[in-house]
Amino acid sequence: MILNYPELAVQELIDEVLKEYAQNNPHTCNCERCKNDIMALSLNNLPPKYVVTDHGNILTKTIYDQVGGKAQVVAALTAAIQKVQKNPRH
Amino acid sequence: MILNYPELAVQELIDEVLKEYAQNNPHTCNCERCKNDIMALSLNNLPPKYVVTDHGNILTKTIYDQVGGKAQVVAALTAAIQKVQKNPRH
Repeated sequence: MILNYPELAVQELIDEVLKEYAQNNPHTCNCERCKNDIMALSLNNLPPKYVVTDHGNILTKTIYDQVGGKAQVVAALTAAIQKVQKNPRH
Repeated sequence: MILNYPELAVQELIDEVLKEYAQNNPHTCNCERCKNDIMALSLNNLPPKYVVTDHGNILTKTIYDQVGGKAQVVAALTAAIQKVQKNPRH
């Protein structure tokens, strides 16, 4: 099977980043539609990193190493959260 | 759910492009490992285009429109086939 590391990283981090964002921004929406929009938007701004793997379980550390670090993913997610919260489609 | 249009396009086209390539290049390998390597390599050279969808069935025409045309995907696949055939990992 093939998988895209940034996709795993974004799935891993979205709840944490949304929670942090919501601390300073009450009324932040975390419905499934908004979360999917945030993930799609983030992933379109991160370089793809597809790999072939037989392993279902991949270490979280490996994921971040492969996408150039956790900070890059958090930044993409934060920018996407701001956009989606301004124009929610739910 | 979220999905990456280039991933659908590559899955849709790989057999056709491999078959065409094999006509001029006998001994072209189309084992699962090589096919996965070709798809991963192609996808790392195509801009991501993630969207949110509830629909399992997406029109093939829509897929190509979303990735900037079929030709771009065929070109990425052909370049990846050449690389993988030179250095197969099977």
